[in-house]
Amino acid sequence: MAAGAAGGGEERRGRLHPAIARVREAVRAALADLPVGTTALVACSGGTDSLALAAATAFAAPKLGVRAGAVIVDHGLQPDSGRTAEIAAEQCRGLGLDPVQVRVVEVGSAGGPEAAARSARYDALRAAADEFGADVVLLAHTRDDQAETVLLGLGRGSGARSLAGMAAVAGLLRRPFLEVPRATTAAACIASGLRPWHDPHNDDPTYTRVRVRHEVLPVLEEALGPGVVEALARTAGLLRADADALDQLAADLAETAVRRTDGEVHCEVGALADEPAALRTRVLRQAALEAGSRATDLTAGHVAAVDALVTDWRGQRWIDLPQGVRAVRRGGFIILGTDMTG
Amino acid sequence: MAAGAAGGGEERRGRLHPAIARVREAVRAALADLPVGTTALVACSGGTDSLALAAATAFAAPKLGVRAGAVIVDHGLQPDSGRTAEIAAEQCRGLGLDPVQVRVVEVGSAGGPEAAARSARYDALRAAADEFGADVVLLAHTRDDQAETVLLGLGRGSGARSLAGMAAVAGLLRRPFLEVPRATTAAACIASGLRPWHDPHNDDPTYTRVRVRHEVLPVLEEALGPGVVEALARTAGLLRADADALDQLAADLAETAVRRTDGEVHCEVGALADEPAALRTRVLRQAALEAGSRATDLTAGHVAAVDALVTDWRGQRWIDLPQGVRAVRRGGFIILGTDMTG
Repeated sequence: MAAGAAGGGEERRGRLHPAIARVREAVRAALADLPVGTTALVACSGGTDSLALAAATAFAAPKLGVRAGAVIVDHGLQPDSGRTAEIAAEQCRGLGLDPVQVRVVEVGSAGGPEAAARSARYDALRAAADEFGADVVLLAHTRDDQAETVLLGLGRGSGARSLAGMAAVAGLLRRPFLEVPRATTAAACIASGLRPWHDPHNDDPTYTRVRVRHEVLPVLEEALGPGVVEALARTAGLLRADADALDQLAADLAETAVRRTDGEVHCEVGALADEPAALRTRVLRQAALEAGSRATDLTAGHVAAVDALVTDWRGQRWIDLPQGVRAVRRGGFIILGTDMTG
Repeated sequence: MAAGAAGGGEERRGRLHPAIARVREAVRAALADLPVGTTALVACSGGTDSLALAAATAFAAPKLGVRAGAVIVDHGLQPDSGRTAEIAAEQCRGLGLDPVQVRVVEVGSAGGPEAAARSARYDALRAAADEFGADVVLLAHTRDDQAETVLLGLGRGSGARSLAGMAAVAGLLRRPFLEVPRATTAAACIASGLRPWHDPHNDDPTYTRVRVRHEVLPVLEEALGPGVVEALARTAGLLRADADALDQLAADLAETAVRRTDGEVHCEVGALADEPAALRTRVLRQAALEAGSRATDLTAGHVAAVDALVTDWRGQRWIDLPQGVRAVRRGGFIILGTDMTG
């Protein structure tokens, strides 16, 4: 239905491939709220998803009065990465995108190869947006990428936020394809005569994501039936909404229940005790972070032990938390800090 | 630490196997709040988990003044099921449980073989609790069962509730082993010299759960590393707390935002519009159920379409929902009913 609007004249003449209609409509919907004259940049690697995104944006953006360009990030991780980037840039120019820029980045090592490359890439995208006065950077993550992200989050086990996948909108980043299957972007490229670059990293099983894609998802589909990818992506959206709501409600609760003094964080037991566990534990977790524990070291088990000071008070001594933070109950408060004798 | 309390004298003499200590402590913690004189029944199949539960309960319950019995449900699904049930009953009696009863049930077919067997089993457990005046029925689901339940829920994709696994406490049912690995119940049986029955259903790949256990989980562990089972079980607990909190908050919101008249459900747009999506969609979903849609047919997509009447009002006509329910926006209300002309 809505695809017809994007297809325009071509669809009326029965020539528009449904995959092209789908990707164009996804981009149109993602840009529809932008003021005329906005600049949007497509982050394009030359791979299937981002090439389909570049083509769809080149079509849909001008109809909305949005100027569409592209940034190609050359991570320098493969010997021919400069040539690959130049081909992608040529394709983007050929699609009518303007400006088109290749940015060469230096990938560090912090957090492992995938995290380091991602961090360098996002920095480059922000810098490009700055340089060209763009308000929006479009990323080509598909529904399949979203499902993989949910499965990767399962291994962390840290609740709704770790299963919430990627956001459709986050700051200047937008992801129009989060509900579009990878098969559709591939079909759109074929139907458009575009020749995507095949990233060899996508087949390298040293990457956890690649193992999830090629090993876990097929077995999961075999066991649970097709539709698993869609279910995982839908799960991500629902859990993201849940996590947003609970984080906001916990922040509201902390306004009244938590005070900071002299490097200590004081949480009022009376204000927390009758609240649901999902809010109490969020407030206490945040308090531990403010007192100095690192998010990566603070487990759900730690937070549960602090919560027991609220809900199951039997005169426990202190609870030791990461980075030398301690939590004690004293008076009507849970007090968290690094200089506590208990 | 706490295991020492359960182990008592045996541990001080260095003889108590840690797996036995762990299962006993899990049962002790699950029964600790019961008044002296309560009766608790173990649901025992004679399999590894429930035999370990029976043994741990026979030890831990009397120390708390709780009377411990057992129910063995004979589903009649295997030719020798009567004999299997009798052996399990003998083992329970040998452990000192009293009363011990075998209940033969008739398994229907509604909802598939697993659901039908479960439904018949739970009915039998409730009937046994009635008969013996028991306030508590203990189930032997382990951390591994919980992880499998979360993965089974992934295929549904209906948000936090479908990933929340099994509850530690639900009415008269309690699950002391939800954080205990299956390997621990197996080790406890071996260390106690108990000989569990091996249920052939546990290896039958026509059951989705069996495929998840033997095919999905090993591949997931291979890709994401060990600790996946623990992470999944922890996820279940966190998402259960989230879902409980949000359901309660949504019910509170519905108190002020929703009215029922003449078979129609009226939701006040002004009361919903500024609430987070996680609450709006829960209120609207519940309204659609009250108007007559069935939970099994009502999708997240349906609810999102109704929500768009609240948040993205552009003069849409009605939204068709399952079982002939329609949602329209009229005046300041979203009105849901089966007799609506739009």
